Amino acid sequence: MIIELLEKIFSWSGSNKSGKEAKRRLKLIIAHDRLGINPEALEAMRKELLEVVSRYVEIDPEETELSIESDQRMTVLIANLPIRKVKRFPKMSSPES
Amino acid sequence: MIIELLEKIFSWSGSNKSGKEAKRRLKLIIAHDRLGINPEALEAMRKELLEVVSRYVEIDPEETELSIESDQRMTVLIANLPIRKVKRFPKMSSPES
Repeated sequence: MIIELLEKIFSWSGSNKSGKEAKRRLKLIIAHDRLGINPEALEAMRKELLEVVSRYVEIDPEETELSIESDQRMTVLIANLPIRKVKRFPKMSSPES
Repeated sequence: MIIELLEKIFSWSGSNKSGKEAKRRLKLIIAHDRLGINPEALEAMRKELLEVVSRYVEIDPEETELSIESDQRMTVLIANLPIRKVKRFPKMSSPES
């Protein structure tokens, strides 16, 4: 089942600080198979993706875990985001905001 | 290794149409452990995330594979996005665009 596989990935990527009250978490994975996206563009895309997510949930920046895994075939960005709270249906991003 | 686990997830979630020339793909996974995000907000967030991605890479909409998996603990959105081309460093999203 896909969910079991994902739980393996996140226990692998994030150090699960036992004893800590298990926080609600949002997990984001971006995997691309050696697309040739340059690292700056990938970094800019990752930041924009996290900005979108933070319009929907309040992320606890101190406990955010980001990791990158790479081999000849694939590069994987993993973001393990502890959530402080879910925002009421967010304001749509308007030009002034 | 995390990448092997991810390859299992994507061969599971996306029907790999053998014979088809293997396209470059970007894979996005959003997993949340029953955060209580309402489905409309999750759908809106997913759309915004895909909009961000499409500013960096040209996605082939016909071959896009989206799936949702859910159990008592976790809900997982999986987007398997075939890429036509990587855009030159994208224009930043400006208010008029």
